[in-house]
Amino acid sequence: MSLIEAVRHGGTDVLTSLRSVCDDRGLDALSRRLAELGELLVADMRLVAEGLGEVPRGERRVQRASHHLLDRGGKRLRPMCVALASRVGAGFDRRGRELAVAVELVHAATLLHDDVVDLGDQRRGAPAARAVYGNAASVFAGDWLLIEALRRVRGADVADTLDRLLAIIEEMIFAESLQLDSRGRVDTSIEDYFRVIDGKTAALFRWACHAGGRSGGLDDAACARLEAYGAHLGVAFQLIDDLLDYTGDSSKTGKDLYTDLREGKLTHPLLLARDASPRVVELLGELLASGEGARAGLHQALVAEVRPVLGETRALAIREAAAALAELEGLPEGPGRDGLRTVALATVERER
Amino acid sequence: MSLIEAVRHGGTDVLTSLRSVCDDRGLDALSRRLAELGELLVADMRLVAEGLGEVPRGERRVQRASHHLLDRGGKRLRPMCVALASRVGAGFDRRGRELAVAVELVHAATLLHDDVVDLGDQRRGAPAARAVYGNAASVFAGDWLLIEALRRVRGADVADTLDRLLAIIEEMIFAESLQLDSRGRVDTSIEDYFRVIDGKTAALFRWACHAGGRSGGLDDAACARLEAYGAHLGVAFQLIDDLLDYTGDSSKTGKDLYTDLREGKLTHPLLLARDASPRVVELLGELLASGEGARAGLHQALVAEVRPVLGETRALAIREAAAALAELEGLPEGPGRDGLRTVALATVERER
Repeated sequence: MSLIEAVRHGGTDVLTSLRSVCDDRGLDALSRRLAELGELLVADMRLVAEGLGEVPRGERRVQRASHHLLDRGGKRLRPMCVALASRVGAGFDRRGRELAVAVELVHAATLLHDDVVDLGDQRRGAPAARAVYGNAASVFAGDWLLIEALRRVRGADVADTLDRLLAIIEEMIFAESLQLDSRGRVDTSIEDYFRVIDGKTAALFRWACHAGGRSGGLDDAACARLEAYGAHLGVAFQLIDDLLDYTGDSSKTGKDLYTDLREGKLTHPLLLARDASPRVVELLGELLASGEGARAGLHQALVAEVRPVLGETRALAIREAAAALAELEGLPEGPGRDGLRTVALATVERER
Repeated sequence: MSLIEAVRHGGTDVLTSLRSVCDDRGLDALSRRLAELGELLVADMRLVAEGLGEVPRGERRVQRASHHLLDRGGKRLRPMCVALASRVGAGFDRRGRELAVAVELVHAATLLHDDVVDLGDQRRGAPAARAVYGNAASVFAGDWLLIEALRRVRGADVADTLDRLLAIIEEMIFAESLQLDSRGRVDTSIEDYFRVIDGKTAALFRWACHAGGRSGGLDDAACARLEAYGAHLGVAFQLIDDLLDYTGDSSKTGKDLYTDLREGKLTHPLLLARDASPRVVELLGELLASGEGARAGLHQALVAEVRPVLGETRALAIREAAAALAELEGLPEGPGRDGLRTVALATVERER
């Protein structure tokens, strides 16, 4: 169980779980930090869970499809950023909670639409909403959660947050659009890769950290630092996500990789390997043209090519996490700032 | 060319076109009213067209998919309602224009998502955006136009309009969800039919009229009347739309009807005919189970059954238009109110 999973479960066992993750890996200092973070966040994340529970349930198909996803939990890392950023300022109040709920709803809305677009069958270890309730319900459920999120932000009435969120969602959509242009191609540039993850992943982290700071009453300069922290954290998070395709509990199969290629999703290590070896370009072309039977073998061959560059992706993730930490320097000391530091450190250590 | 089409084309020939539509049908009084309305609206609708033109163009796939739809024009009846309602008050200013653009963008967003959900191939007499740019681009294009619309409303900063629009969009989504439950069924109740059209069609007309009134500085009571006008107008509009499936230039084919049934779209005349004759229930069941070859014949048989009830649908549309007119009574006299009256009258006379 990762830090994030453990925190989301809340309850009394959270500290034990958190410690055991780190103790296994001999990270004593991080283990202590995580224990403190757990104590700090248990109550906050319970408030977020309550807030998500207030999204109206009902027999409508869009509601059932929405709660099908929300009830699976997920990491809730974005609301955690809102809570911690608000604690850098005056604290996590009712308005901060609304912003934290909203950021998770926006994230859920994008997952619902992504699964329709990518024909995804699994999400958070269960059948995707679109597989249970259909594509149509999943499109409208995404629309609904987006509207619910905007209503929360509107209701919280924290300066800047609504206009910024609308602009951030536009960035996310443009990044999705850029990714669509890469479908079935293996020549995506590293620059386009970063454009896509800046929009698809980092943008919402940016908003979460900035909005949290605002709800804590912080000034423009402090909020700008929090926003920059969020940008770096988001990139680090995505790079590690990419890495876990090759190393983690849920490391990908030949079928997954084939699907990713069809959808234009070339991960960072794969791009590095491609640029390092013409053999990878050949293998990717073969995989794209392959029948189902050949995919496992091609995947094996690709994994062997990718393994040597994984260290480079990890190093870049660590640099991004370090850049995130650097942004925290100018902020008021205290448990909020310490918590954000721990999140950045844990992000590059996570195993799922 | 209908009133609406003519107005949308703007330009110097608008009065001639409008008059000829009505003169053909011997509606001299309405012809004169339409001529006045055309004069009043040409400039306003040009401003709306300019505003829609300011939605950023670009090479992104979501932008091309969005403009593919927007460039086809459409009736623009909802922005027309904003313009006229604002003219019941102090007039159609910059802020009113933003609201008028926004309502058209929300409408366009729903069309983009509807076409994905219904696998629609044609829209506004051209291939649907999803047929040209793909389902994925069409989902994200709908998301984008929704966000653009909300940014416009936010920027216009007219009291009430943003919160109300968010609530209205939720109503629209719930109506879509209700319709999903009727897929492949022929036992939809008349009550559910009205629930669906209240949400899918009338809700946005309600918002358009209310928001227009607000931007014209009207008080709560006047805006409530405009909102009620919009609700009745929307229902009348949809009933006539349903009628035109059986009478209009673009009357539906067996294939269209089959598709509608699969999507749970039972029109008002079809529901009336179903409740009047067990033969219709049989025919609908046969159509749903039919192969392509049999559909034209079954459609013919259904049209014969539906024809006797068309007058009832028309009568109901006229009653709704009359109810819309009644709401206008308590409002300040002037060209705005006269224009709204003409829109309601023309809505039940339109032929496409």
